[in-house]
Amino acid sequence: MGRPGAYAKGVARRREILDRAIEVFQERGLQGTSLRRIAEAIGVSHAALLHYFESREQLLVAVYEHAEIQRGIRDPHPVDATGVETMVRSAVVNVTVPGLVELYSTLVAGALESGSEHGKRFFTARFERVRRDLVERLAAEQRAGTVRDDVSAEHLAALLVAASDGLQVQWLLDPSIELERTLASLSVLLRPSR
Amino acid sequence: MGRPGAYAKGVARRREILDRAIEVFQERGLQGTSLRRIAEAIGVSHAALLHYFESREQLLVAVYEHAEIQRGIRDPHPVDATGVETMVRSAVVNVTVPGLVELYSTLVAGALESGSEHGKRFFTARFERVRRDLVERLAAEQRAGTVRDDVSAEHLAALLVAASDGLQVQWLLDPSIELERTLASLSVLLRPSR
Repeated sequence: MGRPGAYAKGVARRREILDRAIEVFQERGLQGTSLRRIAEAIGVSHAALLHYFESREQLLVAVYEHAEIQRGIRDPHPVDATGVETMVRSAVVNVTVPGLVELYSTLVAGALESGSEHGKRFFTARFERVRRDLVERLAAEQRAGTVRDDVSAEHLAALLVAASDGLQVQWLLDPSIELERTLASLSVLLRPSR
Repeated sequence: MGRPGAYAKGVARRREILDRAIEVFQERGLQGTSLRRIAEAIGVSHAALLHYFESREQLLVAVYEHAEIQRGIRDPHPVDATGVETMVRSAVVNVTVPGLVELYSTLVAGALESGSEHGKRFFTARFERVRRDLVERLAAEQRAGTVRDDVSAEHLAALLVAASDGLQVQWLLDPSIELERTLASLSVLLRPSR
């Protein structure tokens, strides 16, 4: 059970570590920053860091989750936005957060490798949740007649998520591709043909 | 100028190293395989490996390039395939090559980080070439009236490449998303509305 207040203190301490870890990754990049070096930079012992995060992967996934939640608080989705609008807005905001797409891409790539059970579980569940939310919006738009219904909402949702992920990467490598306009053109493709 | 035949021998040796390196990565995964450990596994000296590849990143990019060329030789694009068909076929074949999407995703994520000039140059040029080839096909299909022309061929090409990259990742994490059928539904979205 622990001492009274110990849990709340632990949560606050974990949060503090995540805030500092984000800064460390933004300063030094992801490559070559071991748990031991992060602990040094944050000013905690390696053992203390291991108390909160079992591995570098667990810390990185938590950093990503924390950054994503903060992004959602700063920039909440309007309830009445369409599926495509929600996705375009997320993508455009994501690329303005230093290191966020790099971290996401690195973690997703890592999750594909064997031996990465924590990342694999996290991103499989995350993709499932993101697609499910989008399926709901798109199915409602199909019923309202504002989105074509000759392709299933499930296929459309998976395509929108993939297009958004892939274009953020293409844009970071080459900003001439027009992230926002390219993604927004999906609303033309999804318009009913009648 | 070197000895006669030295260049050809160097090329053959480099190729041999790449063939072995692919096997090593497939056996051991990407994480934690340093240049030194790859040299050991291949049975060459660390210095010999550095003669051909200046860094781990350069070796990995070369491994990817080599694997992609071999894939293209085994499975060439039919000349008369549409843009969407070409892209679907590539994606479906990619996910059958063990480790290829993992390697691609890891290298692309790495290319987004600062300090990764070799990977950044390689993937920026590669995306540009893949999009340009697809723009040509799609523009020809727009002129022939088989692809809608109310979205530019440039935007469509960037979207197709992004959707294909993103869906391969989603499928590897969760095969229930139906890679081929989801991507093929893009041909419905690209159909002219008239």
